[in-house]
Amino acid sequence: MPVFENNVIKEILAKYRRIWAIGHAMSLMGWDEETYMPEKGVTERSTAIAELRALYQELVLSDQFVSLVEKAKSLEGLNDYEKGVVRVLDREITIAKKIPPQLNYELAKTTSEAFVAWREARSKAEFSIFRPWLQKVVDLTKQVAEKLGYEEHPYDALLDLYEEGLRLRDVRSIFSILEPGIRSVLEKVISRGYFTVRSPLEEAKYDEQAMRRVNERVLDLLGFPRDRARLDVSPHPFTTNMGVNDVRITTRYEGLDFKRSLFSVVHEFGHATYELQVDPELAMTPIGTGASLGVHEGQSRFWENVIGRSPQFASLVKPLLDQELGLTRSLSVEDVYRYFASVRPSLIRTEADEVTYNLHILLRYELEVQLVGGEIKVDDLPELWNRRTEELLGVKPNNDAEGVLQDIHWAHGSIGYFPTYTLGNIVAAMMRDAFRKRVGDLGDYVAKGDFGQIKSFLRDFIHRYGSTYAPKELLRRQLGSEYDPNALLSYLEEKYVKGAP
Amino acid sequence: MPVFENNVIKEILAKYRRIWAIGHAMSLMGWDEETYMPEKGVTERSTAIAELRALYQELVLSDQFVSLVEKAKSLEGLNDYEKGVVRVLDREITIAKKIPPQLNYELAKTTSEAFVAWREARSKAEFSIFRPWLQKVVDLTKQVAEKLGYEEHPYDALLDLYEEGLRLRDVRSIFSILEPGIRSVLEKVISRGYFTVRSPLEEAKYDEQAMRRVNERVLDLLGFPRDRARLDVSPHPFTTNMGVNDVRITTRYEGLDFKRSLFSVVHEFGHATYELQVDPELAMTPIGTGASLGVHEGQSRFWENVIGRSPQFASLVKPLLDQELGLTRSLSVEDVYRYFASVRPSLIRTEADEVTYNLHILLRYELEVQLVGGEIKVDDLPELWNRRTEELLGVKPNNDAEGVLQDIHWAHGSIGYFPTYTLGNIVAAMMRDAFRKRVGDLGDYVAKGDFGQIKSFLRDFIHRYGSTYAPKELLRRQLGSEYDPNALLSYLEEKYVKGAP
Repeated sequence: MPVFENNVIKEILAKYRRIWAIGHAMSLMGWDEETYMPEKGVTERSTAIAELRALYQELVLSDQFVSLVEKAKSLEGLNDYEKGVVRVLDREITIAKKIPPQLNYELAKTTSEAFVAWREARSKAEFSIFRPWLQKVVDLTKQVAEKLGYEEHPYDALLDLYEEGLRLRDVRSIFSILEPGIRSVLEKVISRGYFTVRSPLEEAKYDEQAMRRVNERVLDLLGFPRDRARLDVSPHPFTTNMGVNDVRITTRYEGLDFKRSLFSVVHEFGHATYELQVDPELAMTPIGTGASLGVHEGQSRFWENVIGRSPQFASLVKPLLDQELGLTRSLSVEDVYRYFASVRPSLIRTEADEVTYNLHILLRYELEVQLVGGEIKVDDLPELWNRRTEELLGVKPNNDAEGVLQDIHWAHGSIGYFPTYTLGNIVAAMMRDAFRKRVGDLGDYVAKGDFGQIKSFLRDFIHRYGSTYAPKELLRRQLGSEYDPNALLSYLEEKYVKGAP
Repeated sequence: MPVFENNVIKEILAKYRRIWAIGHAMSLMGWDEETYMPEKGVTERSTAIAELRALYQELVLSDQFVSLVEKAKSLEGLNDYEKGVVRVLDREITIAKKIPPQLNYELAKTTSEAFVAWREARSKAEFSIFRPWLQKVVDLTKQVAEKLGYEEHPYDALLDLYEEGLRLRDVRSIFSILEPGIRSVLEKVISRGYFTVRSPLEEAKYDEQAMRRVNERVLDLLGFPRDRARLDVSPHPFTTNMGVNDVRITTRYEGLDFKRSLFSVVHEFGHATYELQVDPELAMTPIGTGASLGVHEGQSRFWENVIGRSPQFASLVKPLLDQELGLTRSLSVEDVYRYFASVRPSLIRTEADEVTYNLHILLRYELEVQLVGGEIKVDDLPELWNRRTEELLGVKPNNDAEGVLQDIHWAHGSIGYFPTYTLGNIVAAMMRDAFRKRVGDLGDYVAKGDFGQIKSFLRDFIHRYGSTYAPKELLRRQLGSEYDPNALLSYLEEKYVKGAP
């Protein structure tokens, strides 16, 4: 049980409660904006969020708070939780201090305009509409990297912003193993053809009300705690937490290819479970939430891919799919499994399968590094994107909407974010290995629908610590090594090569 | 068009935006707590609200803000909107300064515990469970009155808290006219028997999904702007606004006696329309919301009673009730009207009809005045309540749950609040008179479903000003007199005596 005993830490936590409260309010405002807010409420909401964000920043950077955290840095004999509090706050203060308010303001303004331009550009498949905005975003992002500082490459500063401690050399080393490994797996998968088969379910329309019942029943199977969590609908699925006892996920209903809606739910359930299993003693403290984007994505991918796209899960949910949705009645469990776990190189990252997904990330991260390093220009992006897509995936975009314009991230100014998705895939595979080693075969538990045991394992090994430990340290301590790409390759090999008849 | 030209006012409004943002967040948090928040989120939510409330108070009372408002008080040549800003902020600061933080803290703590005791007391119909808590609430409320100060009676200080400028002598004068007037109307209504008849619909169960469709269709008829407003479900119906473009109402579905759910919707629609029709130029300023509880209740009662419980409205909505709900198919429009507008003395205020409603308020306000004035004791309440109910309404509670324990207000510490309900009923009748004088017969517009014309009138005469003017001044300027009880009596006489065959 974490205990905060040191008086300076206690004083910090008492003061932090107000900062936390503003964060709580902003989370709710963000959730509401995507779910229930009337359309025209957006202007007032944006103003309110901007004011609260400024207030949040002021409180974090207030002299009194900063000097308390400074004082805490020199304390000896702190326990791990107390050290975590100091680490997280020191990092937040350091980053906030390094980026001048004017630069933050420019970034917020530019990305909000860039988002509008990107949306138009994508809908018209015309990169030229987005190009000048992307140029501004890249320029401002480079300034951010310079202000943050770095040892080897400006991209290091950006990576660290999204994943504490992550460096370009880590990402390079990960992909130097992943790229050939995945290409090899993919070749075998394609040549065997078992997982590349097209399912009639991909084209099948579904009834939204029935699909809502499916999603709710699947959440019941997984053990979604309704008194602490809820499922809603939003244009893009996401998870948000207002606290350890109020975590909310969303999905969407497109009316076609039901696995998209279903696996959004299972994916977000993974994120939610992380937040729901943080030790309640850490509630309302700086370490009361997941350790990093990469570790978080590890949880969502574990549920979505390792559990959700398994034959045992297909077998478990088929009866309720048959009953509620009807579309699977004439199919076998194996058909449903192959629909869930199909592998086919494709153009759109968000629709990519487990095997090819990380090649999409490789493409993006390489371009980002070169952009930020000044080796390529914004103008070069569409062509480089298309050429590299063909090299990596063997398919070529017909237009920029299918290519360089497909992701929202750059419009949002999130350069350096993509690699955390691959970290997530790696962490998911590492957790599967750890489960096998410590508890048993995951598939057996999934087959029985015994998710309580799986959640206990996740809680004890990862979740309960919140962000007590920095991500790399957490992984070393709890899973035996930092982001290990070989775990992902073994998992893919076992599932998609050895697993194919 | 309101314009803020004075530089001091502009500076105040720029600083106020942050205070507004916190208020916006708290409104959303309150709404969410009653509608979608997972049950166990309540602890963290309460902490967040307490922190934001304290922060709000600190910003309002910050030296810089207070001295700006002080400076503005001596400015000459301000326009009405600018004067309104100064009036509202000066009032808020003055009240906040007078009540010591310790007293506020005691009140918050006591009322939160009193609420729990009241809920138990009511469910067991045992006043003794609530008695000690009510005693504490009364004691603390008296302290509040002393801190706020008053000229004639401590109740004045409490009335003013809920309705700016309202005094005990106003309320006494109002009820000295209303009490005999209402008794006289009630006698005639009972002797004629037309409105006292019991409808089979009172006992009829309804299908919730069908009732939801009824409510949505009625809101469509009334012209509820879906891009700026929404309807949800909560245990107790309410309206909340996050801004002029985000106003939300709720209703409930009890499954029986559908007019309760329907008229909650129409009532809250009235509150919402007030907020939605405040001049958008006043958004995010201290005067960008309704003028007072009494004027607000005037809007809700105008829609609920004057419009909703009219024969024309019954005729307008009967086809959709027939279609969606079915229960009214074998009944005439007249039957439905008499169901909507039935009059029968009863024990529970929230279920009271238009004629007897204000007698319930009279009972409460008399007891409050005597309690606060020290003429009666908390122990005396149950007996006094029952005796006076019999005198005023001719019915007697069987137990305290039907009597002194029925309302939440005292547990919440809201002593001095009840009279604003009667002010609302009066204002609704005054607005009906003003509409008749300036536009035409309200019933004709309702019959045609021409609510646009009615809303324009309300916007131009009352809504657009927000709280630019104090309530009494607003009524004098726009409706020709302050709260006029005779307007209510004429309306009741015309509708329930002359209107009965």
